[in-house]
Amino acid sequence: MNETPVTVLGLGAMGTALARVLLDHGHPVTVWNRSPGKGDDLVERGARRAATAAQAVTASPLTVVCVTDYPAVRKVLGAVGDAVAGRTLVNLTTGTPAQARDTAAWAGEHGARYLDGVVQASPELVGTPDAVFLHSGPRQAFETHRTVLDHLGTVHHLGDDPGLACLYDLALLGLWYEAETAYLNALATVRASGADVEAFAAFAGGQIGHVAQAAPDTARQVKERRYPVGPAPLTVHLPVVGRLRDLRAATGMDTEPVDRLHAMIERRIARGHGAEGFTGLIEELTGQEAERRNVAPAR
Amino acid sequence: MNETPVTVLGLGAMGTALARVLLDHGHPVTVWNRSPGKGDDLVERGARRAATAAQAVTASPLTVVCVTDYPAVRKVLGAVGDAVAGRTLVNLTTGTPAQARDTAAWAGEHGARYLDGVVQASPELVGTPDAVFLHSGPRQAFETHRTVLDHLGTVHHLGDDPGLACLYDLALLGLWYEAETAYLNALATVRASGADVEAFAAFAGGQIGHVAQAAPDTARQVKERRYPVGPAPLTVHLPVVGRLRDLRAATGMDTEPVDRLHAMIERRIARGHGAEGFTGLIEELTGQEAERRNVAPAR
Repeated sequence: MNETPVTVLGLGAMGTALARVLLDHGHPVTVWNRSPGKGDDLVERGARRAATAAQAVTASPLTVVCVTDYPAVRKVLGAVGDAVAGRTLVNLTTGTPAQARDTAAWAGEHGARYLDGVVQASPELVGTPDAVFLHSGPRQAFETHRTVLDHLGTVHHLGDDPGLACLYDLALLGLWYEAETAYLNALATVRASGADVEAFAAFAGGQIGHVAQAAPDTARQVKERRYPVGPAPLTVHLPVVGRLRDLRAATGMDTEPVDRLHAMIERRIARGHGAEGFTGLIEELTGQEAERRNVAPAR
Repeated sequence: MNETPVTVLGLGAMGTALARVLLDHGHPVTVWNRSPGKGDDLVERGARRAATAAQAVTASPLTVVCVTDYPAVRKVLGAVGDAVAGRTLVNLTTGTPAQARDTAAWAGEHGARYLDGVVQASPELVGTPDAVFLHSGPRQAFETHRTVLDHLGTVHHLGDDPGLACLYDLALLGLWYEAETAYLNALATVRASGADVEAFAAFAGGQIGHVAQAAPDTARQVKERRYPVGPAPLTVHLPVVGRLRDLRAATGMDTEPVDRLHAMIERRIARGHGAEGFTGLIEELTGQEAERRNVAPAR
């Protein structure tokens, strides 16, 4: 077996799944977990258990870190210290882009190469093409260990900025949370009106699908900051959103999110963009906080 | 030609498209528009132009109304008055369920059958299967004129309550507005972080697709008011939403929508549902306004 030796730090459900798949692919695997009593089944399958995190890291050229959060990453890496020199870290812990960049900086100061990454799958999918891994950091480190990473799922390298994987991860999670909330708002409106939510659901999937189908085109408009009218201008959307507000109010729902959208469209129209399409509202999403700061007295 | 004579009131882009398709299918078509100067091309194609709305309605057993909004519907029907007796109205004007029910009541008082409906398509699609028509009102009226309605696109009868078509329409439009806003929030987060929105968009479609794929199952949970944990419990979602808030704040975006979601999850957990799935948040969406009223002093 000539597979790269790999160390896995953190044996939660995801770390355990990663170690298991690496073992299945014939990698010599060293494992370590902060609290004891984990990894027995991995050891039975041939993994070596290290006594300390530093020993674990020195056992392999490549270490995968998968712990609860970045404070835990810092604690683990603090214990590893200079033992990380000359090694490559792949940190699959979820966090913010700033946390990922800080950890990359720490690794650089300690002579290690650093790749960040996020797993967009539940542990049982690891090792299948359905487990999507988003990586960011120096492309060379990614290419060097690509064969190992390929064993874990479908991998993408997003760019050299180590913060990109966490940025995509959080932006995509936020997209799911907010789109799902949009759907729950629609179901709540239907249910509060006394209608059948399952009958309604038959029409909802296609409607959400319109957003997905137009996603690349919408992104292009945002990139170019040009907002063609599309199916309807903002001046036509405004009264529809007003009626939606009336309906939500009539069903006893809180109208705040729709009020907010209505005000945003009004603001955009007041700025002279009423003949443009819905996508232009993005300028209100990013502009508004900055503007509020500008409005605050300067003295 | 034995096709049912049909009257079309309102010759905007949609009304004109409806009249044209009906003419193409060999229906004798009578048209009328409140302001003059419209429908010349329809008359050239064989439509008869009526001098008044009342004359137009009496010319056919079936009248399709397609005007700007419900105040305009009321004005037109007020002018028609008792001439509507014994006829069937299909009102395709967009509005709220309450407006549709009021108009149905007016029609009933004047001896007419009333079907409400909404068109989920732009005018150029009318007459193709891609033009989706949602109807509601007495099923018998729908079945009687189904052949005519089928000529216009793909038709669905939602139920006997005349408000259902407008309810579905507004709930579906609201779903699009809020899901699209979710996507714009994600793009704004990515753009404000200095990353490329088009590269990000390649991953966004699939993420939105997850909401669409799970839509029937989500609706079933809502109907049964049972919220299994699914991929993660609310206690796991909470810190992720917290990180999303940190990221939005770091990019200078307004965090209010995420704060709102965070508070909603916290409230649901505080009520003892932390081990359940995300869908259970619907109980916070509908419960909250009622609760606020309960909190207000009763005296």
